[in-house]
Amino acid sequence: MKFIQLICIIINNHSMIGVESMLKVGIIGASGYTGGELVRILSQHPKMEIAALTSRTHAGKKLEEIFPSFTGWDGPVFSGTDSPEGVQGCDLVFLAVPHGVAMKLAPALLAKGQKVIDLGADFRFRERLVYEKWYKLEHSEPDLSKKAVYGLPEIYRNQIREAKLVGNPGCYPTSAILGIYPALKQDIIDTNIVIIDSKSGVSGAGRKAEIGYNYPELFGNFKAYGIAGHRHTPEIEQELSGICGTDITVSFTPHLLPVARGILSTIHLKLKQKLTTAEVTGIYANTYQGEPFIKVVPEPVLPDLKGVVGTNYCHIGARVDERSGSLIVVSVIDNMVKGASGQAVQNMNLMFDFPETMGLIQWPVFP
Amino acid sequence: MKFIQLICIIINNHSMIGVESMLKVGIIGASGYTGGELVRILSQHPKMEIAALTSRTHAGKKLEEIFPSFTGWDGPVFSGTDSPEGVQGCDLVFLAVPHGVAMKLAPALLAKGQKVIDLGADFRFRERLVYEKWYKLEHSEPDLSKKAVYGLPEIYRNQIREAKLVGNPGCYPTSAILGIYPALKQDIIDTNIVIIDSKSGVSGAGRKAEIGYNYPELFGNFKAYGIAGHRHTPEIEQELSGICGTDITVSFTPHLLPVARGILSTIHLKLKQKLTTAEVTGIYANTYQGEPFIKVVPEPVLPDLKGVVGTNYCHIGARVDERSGSLIVVSVIDNMVKGASGQAVQNMNLMFDFPETMGLIQWPVFP
Amino acid sequence: MKFIQLICIIINNHSMIGVESMLKVGIIGASGYTGGELVRILSQHPKMEIAALTSRTHAGKKLEEIFPSFTGWDGPVFSGTDSPEGVQGCDLVFLAVPHGVAMKLAPALLAKGQKVIDLGADFRFRERLVYEKWYKLEHSEPDLSKKAVYGLPEIYRNQIREAKLVGNPGCYPTSAILGIYPALKQDIIDTNIVIIDSKSGVSGAGRKAEIGYNYPELFGNFKAYGIAGHRHTPEIEQELSGICGTDITVSFTPHLLPVARGILSTIHLKLKQKLTTAEVTGIYANTYQGEPFIKVVPEPVLPDLKGVVGTNYCHIGARVDERSGSLIVVSVIDNMVKGASGQAVQNMNLMFDFPETMGLIQWPVFP
Amino acid sequence: MKFIQLICIIINNHSMIGVESMLKVGIIGASGYTGGELVRILSQHPKMEIAALTSRTHAGKKLEEIFPSFTGWDGPVFSGTDSPEGVQGCDLVFLAVPHGVAMKLAPALLAKGQKVIDLGADFRFRERLVYEKWYKLEHSEPDLSKKAVYGLPEIYRNQIREAKLVGNPGCYPTSAILGIYPALKQDIIDTNIVIIDSKSGVSGAGRKAEIGYNYPELFGNFKAYGIAGHRHTPEIEQELSGICGTDITVSFTPHLLPVARGILSTIHLKLKQKLTTAEVTGIYANTYQGEPFIKVVPEPVLPDLKGVVGTNYCHIGARVDERSGSLIVVSVIDNMVKGASGQAVQNMNLMFDFPETMGLIQWPVFP
Repeated sequence: MKFIQLICIIINNHSMIGVESMLKVGIIGASGYTGGELVRILSQHPKMEIAALTSRTHAGKKLEEIFPSFTGWDGPVFSGTDSPEGVQGCDLVFLAVPHGVAMKLAPALLAKGQKVIDLGADFRFRERLVYEKWYKLEHSEPDLSKKAVYGLPEIYRNQIREAKLVGNPGCYPTSAILGIYPALKQDIIDTNIVIIDSKSGVSGAGRKAEIGYNYPELFGNFKAYGIAGHRHTPEIEQELSGICGTDITVSFTPHLLPVARGILSTIHLKLKQKLTTAEVTGIYANTYQGEPFIKVVPEPVLPDLKGVVGTNYCHIGARVDERSGSLIVVSVIDNMVKGASGQAVQNMNLMFDFPETMGLIQWPVFP
Repeated sequence: MKFIQLICIIINNHSMIGVESMLKVGIIGASGYTGGELVRILSQHPKMEIAALTSRTHAGKKLEEIFPSFTGWDGPVFSGTDSPEGVQGCDLVFLAVPHGVAMKLAPALLAKGQKVIDLGADFRFRERLVYEKWYKLEHSEPDLSKKAVYGLPEIYRNQIREAKLVGNPGCYPTSAILGIYPALKQDIIDTNIVIIDSKSGVSGAGRKAEIGYNYPELFGNFKAYGIAGHRHTPEIEQELSGICGTDITVSFTPHLLPVARGILSTIHLKLKQKLTTAEVTGIYANTYQGEPFIKVVPEPVLPDLKGVVGTNYCHIGARVDERSGSLIVVSVIDNMVKGASGQAVQNMNLMFDFPETMGLIQWPVFP
Repeated sequence: MKFIQLICIIINNHSMIGVESMLKVGIIGASGYTGGELVRILSQHPKMEIAALTSRTHAGKKLEEIFPSFTGWDGPVFSGTDSPEGVQGCDLVFLAVPHGVAMKLAPALLAKGQKVIDLGADFRFRERLVYEKWYKLEHSEPDLSKKAVYGLPEIYRNQIREAKLVGNPGCYPTSAILGIYPALKQDIIDTNIVIIDSKSGVSGAGRKAEIGYNYPELFGNFKAYGIAGHRHTPEIEQELSGICGTDITVSFTPHLLPVARGILSTIHLKLKQKLTTAEVTGIYANTYQGEPFIKVVPEPVLPDLKGVVGTNYCHIGARVDERSGSLIVVSVIDNMVKGASGQAVQNMNLMFDFPETMGLIQWPVFP
Repeated sequence: MKFIQLICIIINNHSMIGVESMLKVGIIGASGYTGGELVRILSQHPKMEIAALTSRTHAGKKLEEIFPSFTGWDGPVFSGTDSPEGVQGCDLVFLAVPHGVAMKLAPALLAKGQKVIDLGADFRFRERLVYEKWYKLEHSEPDLSKKAVYGLPEIYRNQIREAKLVGNPGCYPTSAILGIYPALKQDIIDTNIVIIDSKSGVSGAGRKAEIGYNYPELFGNFKAYGIAGHRHTPEIEQELSGICGTDITVSFTPHLLPVARGILSTIHLKLKQKLTTAEVTGIYANTYQGEPFIKVVPEPVLPDLKGVVGTNYCHIGARVDERSGSLIVVSVIDNMVKGASGQAVQNMNLMFDFPETMGLIQWPVFP
């Protein structure tokens, strides 16, 4: 494996610095799905020490009591407070807390010189009013929010390298923005028609005890939800508008797939000019040339969920419907990895000058 | 059960005619999924006798050897020829054969005075050239095709009553057309933008031994397929164009859901005028008033697969996205029932003057 | 369909009595899975009127607000009390309440002359101490319990016909007892070794909002639970001991299958003498001859879940392992139908002198 | 991650040897599931170069054409012959071919000094007659078979280190033998009663286009198969008999779980003496002390599929049923990893003096 060899050589060079140079990271709110996924990924990262996990509800418990998949894991137990005290001494703190909580925690952490990656929505929005309208919550740190960097490396790589505070993107926005970015950047679509039809595995709803997510209710089932009102809508619009410089309104329709993981977004666009599937595929491939986690798949392949589940990859396929002048883009990620914890680690790598792919290279399990 | 009482009274009245008046039906090509589903539904029908089943590959076998779910079924064994001889004496013949085969069989059956319902594509198209272009096959019976009735009772009920030959609609077209019909008929949408994003259970692909449908490949998986080229596209366009009197081009994107049954179509439309969700829901409810198998569900409910699986119902929910001016319609059916065999029985009921719902009333199994 | 014709003729004869003779039934605790399933099945029953549904938590709501699968159902709304007042005027009351509650309700209902079928455990045990040990609850009606009939028609058909109070069997016990009964009755097995390895769909756990049943946790998963301590153990032992007249101790191990419905019990027994698979299959087929809901499937077929899901059937297959002298029996039911609500309706049919299969004949949906 | 740090230090030391010292491995028959899984695992192995892949049916194709999950993989294309020529220059050859084929290939490979790990059954049996009886095939290399080592490191670690030819264990036998080994070794069970009730994901059947594995047929389904005749039976018996020195006959019943991956074996045993669950758990934990891939989970946890899927771990939980004197052991593995390709890599590590866990440490993806 030449690629792996390369990684190993990198590892070798880095490890010369020795164990004492390991980055200390803490996770506040580590008992949810994204928290567990952070631990899984960070455990594969050679430059990392998980120094602190916090959870209000599971104080004193071992990780494996909450996640049996971590049977035998020898990291720290949960400290019982979702507060800065729980992560003292950490170089980097991941916030995996409900929205509204992260904005209370971030200032104190930053004041101590700790870098922060927030996996929630509090620091994703440049416009305080947009956040407040969709999340129905007053934002207590609008200035900090303006300084935060939106953690999508394919667009903001350089800013992330310098960032102290990163607002890690939402899962649906990651799949949607990555699927539309090349078309917008190359100005090949009508910006008035951006229809995003997304389908997500149930883990996207978090680790919740609700009748609606009870296994038998969703088994063999499928449905749309949150039509015309999902909170990821303004996040997608903010970023798309930023790319092309004009205000874009999208129509976003999420659905619940009866699987644990993965998001597939089917994006319906209108071409401004005649282009073939091969030409559009070329535009996408060029735009993402050199991107370590984006794979533009050529005809006749179309990306599927299992091709990315468990990995940090985003697979994208494009098709032109010449009869209707439509461009249909299929963009697939693992909502827990590229859509959350993997992207957070990718951002961490950038913020601490590690190789961007460190700890994140893995082929999907198949079948 | 007042409704059931009513049915029973109807049954009583009808059964006065006695056993000798039972309708004799035959199924040519009965060893596929739609064939088995026809048997299941017809077995609940009080006025019906399944007199003949044919299958080239399973001559002489009992139904339960092919479908273990029919253990103990006491109907006829498969006769070994997919030809008119296999269904002699039947009043009605269902054709569940590949396209291209039905057009060879229908003339002889009709000549003997047998009525015919074709579950394939051969008699769905009024324009021979459309069929020939998409199915890449010469049509040997273009005149017969013009006389056939498209078997969607919600639109063609009266013609079906008089029909000798019915082209039973495709599964995707049934869900799509029923989801768009009220909006087109009431002229509330821009006919230039009709985007149909459909998701189907795997039974829609038929009973096939192919690696791509091998259980582990699709487990936990999801993908789009046939973008810009699926053969159900021209069928949808023919019917939508017929409704509004102008040529409509749709963009149709099917997906494969990791479940056995059910189709959910999410239809993205543009409103011509400002309307609320409640107003659109009202328009839909009015259009389908009295329809026994269409349920328009009001806010905040959205229809889901399990609400229709195993039944002949179509559930429809509509949402206006006021920000983008979009109308999103969710239309759900069981692809094997309302999308195939159930609709065929509904058509049979109309053709033989039985109550339209006879044999088709059943609540879905939940959970 | 000759069978259906027969049923219809029966229906006709019965319906002469007219609508006013419909049986009035009530369901106390109708908002759980077994309650909903009772409604589904009773809706297919021609001699039945669902006159009352009660639910403490859903007073005043329509059934379809709790079970969207009943969209359009026109029966009674939930009355808000799980008490006899809620079911006044009913000829028969189904109790679908937690154990400990039924024993409080039954005496008053019986005193009014209403018949009672309890779907819980309160009236399944002849020995008060057994109940109290395993359910950790004092039994307030031990005498009533002795008079109750265990509602397994294949064993207690005649007693059920005369019963005022039926303790409807548990789901695991139904599959296990039916799978062992012929072997015990014909005295072909060593009664010291009865190992029941059962696998159940998640609906068996009821409609619960618990993290452990959250969709993503169980998706793609499988596990054993409750080993050596499941409460269905003494119920199985009581009935097996009753069949053969000696005390039988079983080893019962339940597992959670990642499906919504169905129980498959693999029962490991030791033959007392040399017998072939064909001989044992013959013994089983003879024992169940004439039983309308038991199908003994012959070699080489083995029963599977989908062959029974949604129906009241129990499919049984037997295999002799000549090398080890073992008899392996596979017994399959739908836990919600033959394992709960369907069996309750079968019992009702017996108690009210309806044809035993009335409302219960249905082929499984496949695939 | 202290554990990972350790691994990294090991990696560092080893990598001093440099890239030119990479082990060259070839896979004959690489287009099946176990072949793909070998590539996935070997890609994570720092001391390995995949030098050759062969497949008769896919000559000249890239791996990603067969397994889209390997999109972007830069290893060799399939050479078109399942023969020794296809793997010239390799230090080690994995055989992932049907039984009967490996025995034809092995001698030539060994003659060239290549080491061989056969993932099929040809070299698992010491007794030629046992193989020939159950596989209905003459064994052409009985002497070679006697020299081959059964590749279960927990029992044969030292022999594997010295082996030139390893017969990699079957998936069911791995889970069963590991679950019974401590009880047999410590002589706590009656050797006359060994009942193994196993449940496997569908990938265990291989990558086959058969109606019986068509997605809709197995969705929501579950069944037993191959009762009293599965070919893994004699393999289990050979090894158990070897452990305790007396002939053991087992009763083995496999089932098909509707998931892609994982085997859970529930093993029903009889204790010879009174022991508590804690005592038995202690015996198991002691037996497997220091084993890097076996985790004995203590009460109240019971192992589940998702705890091991994608990893090389075997999780084992034991319960004593004091009433019946039974010992129930639950043993769980990923059939594709510890049950096939992962175990093969573990064996390779031993044969080439790499750290036993190299390339195999990974937490399972959850949820």
